[in-house]
Amino acid sequence: MTEVNRSWRLAARPQGMIKDSDFTWHEEPLPAELGPGQILVETLYLSVDPTQRIWMERDSYLPAVGIGEVMRAGGVGRVVRSSLPGFSPGDLVYGMTGWQTHAVIEPSIRGPRKLPDGVPPTMAVSLLGLTGLTAYFGLLDVGSLKDGETVVVSGAAGATGNAVGQIAKIKGCRVVGIAGGPEKCAWIKDELGFDAAIDYKAEDVYKRLGELCPNGIDVYFDNVGGLILEAALSYIALRGRVVLCGSIGDYNNAEAAYGPNNLMNLVLKRGRMEGFIVTDYAARFGDAIGDLARWAAEGRIKDRVDVVEGLSNAPAALRRLFTGANTGKQLVKVAAG
Amino acid sequence: MTEVNRSWRLAARPQGMIKDSDFTWHEEPLPAELGPGQILVETLYLSVDPTQRIWMERDSYLPAVGIGEVMRAGGVGRVVRSSLPGFSPGDLVYGMTGWQTHAVIEPSIRGPRKLPDGVPPTMAVSLLGLTGLTAYFGLLDVGSLKDGETVVVSGAAGATGNAVGQIAKIKGCRVVGIAGGPEKCAWIKDELGFDAAIDYKAEDVYKRLGELCPNGIDVYFDNVGGLILEAALSYIALRGRVVLCGSIGDYNNAEAAYGPNNLMNLVLKRGRMEGFIVTDYAARFGDAIGDLARWAAEGRIKDRVDVVEGLSNAPAALRRLFTGANTGKQLVKVAAG
Repeated sequence: MTEVNRSWRLAARPQGMIKDSDFTWHEEPLPAELGPGQILVETLYLSVDPTQRIWMERDSYLPAVGIGEVMRAGGVGRVVRSSLPGFSPGDLVYGMTGWQTHAVIEPSIRGPRKLPDGVPPTMAVSLLGLTGLTAYFGLLDVGSLKDGETVVVSGAAGATGNAVGQIAKIKGCRVVGIAGGPEKCAWIKDELGFDAAIDYKAEDVYKRLGELCPNGIDVYFDNVGGLILEAALSYIALRGRVVLCGSIGDYNNAEAAYGPNNLMNLVLKRGRMEGFIVTDYAARFGDAIGDLARWAAEGRIKDRVDVVEGLSNAPAALRRLFTGANTGKQLVKVAAG
Repeated sequence: MTEVNRSWRLAARPQGMIKDSDFTWHEEPLPAELGPGQILVETLYLSVDPTQRIWMERDSYLPAVGIGEVMRAGGVGRVVRSSLPGFSPGDLVYGMTGWQTHAVIEPSIRGPRKLPDGVPPTMAVSLLGLTGLTAYFGLLDVGSLKDGETVVVSGAAGATGNAVGQIAKIKGCRVVGIAGGPEKCAWIKDELGFDAAIDYKAEDVYKRLGELCPNGIDVYFDNVGGLILEAALSYIALRGRVVLCGSIGDYNNAEAAYGPNNLMNLVLKRGRMEGFIVTDYAARFGDAIGDLARWAAEGRIKDRVDVVEGLSNAPAALRRLFTGANTGKQLVKVAAG
């Protein structure tokens, strides 16, 4: 075990696409001792999420990361030292490690949580982390999903999107995924069992949605915003629900893009569009993780991770989300487990 | 009583702003006899509503008005003949009279309903008609209004908007209305008791909303769409609700305008945007009319109507909605009561 903590600290608010120079690399000794209720964790994997772009930029549902502070991120790691009852050296935990090799963590709504036995560390920051929970609560609670409905999800080969589609299939729904490129489309259709896939880079999304959803869209789970949201709204079914998870297409635009021109469809169809933040459901995380872990164990849901090696590559890994480079959940591997 | 029915029939789907030539004037004898369950009504006042523009144009939550059919509209009239049990000549009724001096009406979700004793005919097609009901269910049910919240309503000097603001005041809320011109603003503030008014023709709506809603907007009741919707979304409070009633600014545009560029605020604030059609609440109309009539009788809510004289002016009356000419509920007076 090294005695040095290495970290990326925020150096500048991002302008347009994230740059390496938005961060600075720091090295410093590990803390000599922990305060009461703290654990020191060696980071194994970092969760890479679109919302981190928001955290870099401005106050939102969380305060912005301060300039000079370690970049905020969820991660999974191994406890090195502990003064927190119930946590011992060697335990695998999920928590807000940030972009650093070693993190001092205190209890909060965001962790630390010990991993259930037998769960691989990567799954704790993917299907059983905020990613899978976002899919679960967004689809089932915000989307009020009912068996047999037609579900459309964008960003369908992304971390949240692929879980949304798989959960909808478990719930007996017809699922259409929208993703970029033939490989991603083949993966969600052939490997994950989506009923259909639309390649937004090659196909007319509006036209294809009309063909694939002749009875309209009951739940549209939106990860991208923009013209794809507009296309989905065109086919919203009576009392359809649009779950707004985030508009990845917009996060790096200096000027916000125009929104959908057909919100009137929400009136005519008595539709609902609703946003959410997954940590609002923290009191129910235990039950949801139980469902997700069981589905994974039964082979009914697959958890694919897309791993970039090395903390030094964390800025590049974050950029991958916004260029559509990742398939499945983007992670950074910081250390061997 | 004349033996002739005069009517406006739809001649063309509207292109841009409604024209007189979208309709043709017909005269024909009254029906010699009624079928079972029918009433013949002499129209007194017609309700003039933005949604009628949609009925002219296309199938929506109702089928489009057919070319050659009498233009669809709600109205209030006096029963001339009846073969419907419970309805007698002389009764004042609300129903779908259409743009004609005499209408044969059969029971449906949209009437006929007898007016409560003492209710002026104009109020039956305004506060106690679908207009007031739209305000009532939109604000209280779709908007889930809670006492003490901050409510913003656009089209605030229009039929639905002024009722929304007055109901919100009755419910103990702080109310900001957005309307066009100093007279309308003075009316909603000084006569109706809104806490503040924003003149969108003279003021920066975005800036003024920020000043007037320092704790955010809990319920935004949208009658106009476009940039005013976008401005309101900028200030949506945590778990705020946007009630989509219709986007009057867009109905006459050949190309739909862009939508709001800040739907991401619905994610960050866990906000909800929902559309509705008031007739979905028909089973509860009786209770709602009871509340509205009581508030009117107590002087707690005022019902202002803006009357255009003569069926021949119905097309012009409908255009007034889209040029912002009306204050309060737009009606056409067809015959003296």
